[in-house]
Amino acid sequence: MDALETRAAILRAAADIASVDGLEGLSIGRLATELSMSKSGVLGQFGSKEELQLETVRLVLANFVARVWEPARHLERGLPRLTGVCEAWARYAMAPGYPGGCCVATFSHEFDGRPGRVRDELAGGVRQWRATLVREITTAIGNGDLPPDLDPHQAAFTLDAIASGVGPARLLHGETDAGTWAAHAMRAALRTP
Amino acid sequence: MDALETRAAILRAAADIASVDGLEGLSIGRLATELSMSKSGVLGQFGSKEELQLETVRLVLANFVARVWEPARHLERGLPRLTGVCEAWARYAMAPGYPGGCCVATFSHEFDGRPGRVRDELAGGVRQWRATLVREITTAIGNGDLPPDLDPHQAAFTLDAIASGVGPARLLHGETDAGTWAAHAMRAALRTP
Repeated sequence: MDALETRAAILRAAADIASVDGLEGLSIGRLATELSMSKSGVLGQFGSKEELQLETVRLVLANFVARVWEPARHLERGLPRLTGVCEAWARYAMAPGYPGGCCVATFSHEFDGRPGRVRDELAGGVRQWRATLVREITTAIGNGDLPPDLDPHQAAFTLDAIASGVGPARLLHGETDAGTWAAHAMRAALRTP
Repeated sequence: MDALETRAAILRAAADIASVDGLEGLSIGRLATELSMSKSGVLGQFGSKEELQLETVRLVLANFVARVWEPARHLERGLPRLTGVCEAWARYAMAPGYPGGCCVATFSHEFDGRPGRVRDELAGGVRQWRATLVREITTAIGNGDLPPDLDPHQAAFTLDAIASGVGPARLLHGETDAGTWAAHAMRAALRTP
């Protein structure tokens, strides 16, 4: 493996571990063992645990965008795109590709009470996502496709909360219908059929 | 302080710490420092870190019931009680009394991907809460106060997800309207005015 491949392999393993044990649960030693590398080999790629956490957050946010936004971005702005996002989001929440569920949701609950760079990186990504949702909801209202009294900020909050609830429902309670429930609840939150 | 008061003080501090740093972030050493006790004094009350985590989960679940269920339990079964629960829940989510937000939500995201006794204790409590919600929703449908095509399990999932979303919205993004949004979104999920 060249340096870039090594870096990618470390981050992939870091995201998997952090999805179960949290970003604070990441340890350079454990990553080194899992990847059959030296601790200095892992640390050399990132310089510090905080830098590793920051890069893990960036990877996880990029994966989220690729799985939830990209499948819908070719659709017409407003309700068609928003509907596509909600469908992709419910599918992603049921199979996010991390053993411990969606990292964005897990990290948000882990870091919402802490100050620091990791939290700021995460908050920035989630805030951008909220702004994207608000924009599409606003467009859909403007087009007459959603009720004019819908509050775009409230609706974006509700969509986010519903999607974030899928992981615990699925992993803690084995609710196999959680994805379908979420897709249905998202449509209800937007007051679309 | 007698032994019971000491135990209560340790658990109170443990819940505050865990709301920010997670249940895995609890350390006997840090608790001892914060409470000006010896490590063996803290450990002597619980025997192991896992036992301390279990007792913290029980305390947090009991507080949740006291704050969200008790204010509504005197109300008539079905929609009146359910509405009371949702109102109390939205208030609690905005001011749960822990620096890092609602511990039930935080712990659920922290432990949903891990096996073990702590997870089972938490899952049991949350499952009981879901069953309570399902019962009240079913009663409300039976009384003709909620639409007959509402799925009680899906509605209970949605209420839980919405309430769990308040913490990150408030703490990560400073959304001061999150409690009002949640109360509104809960009513919409139940399709009540």
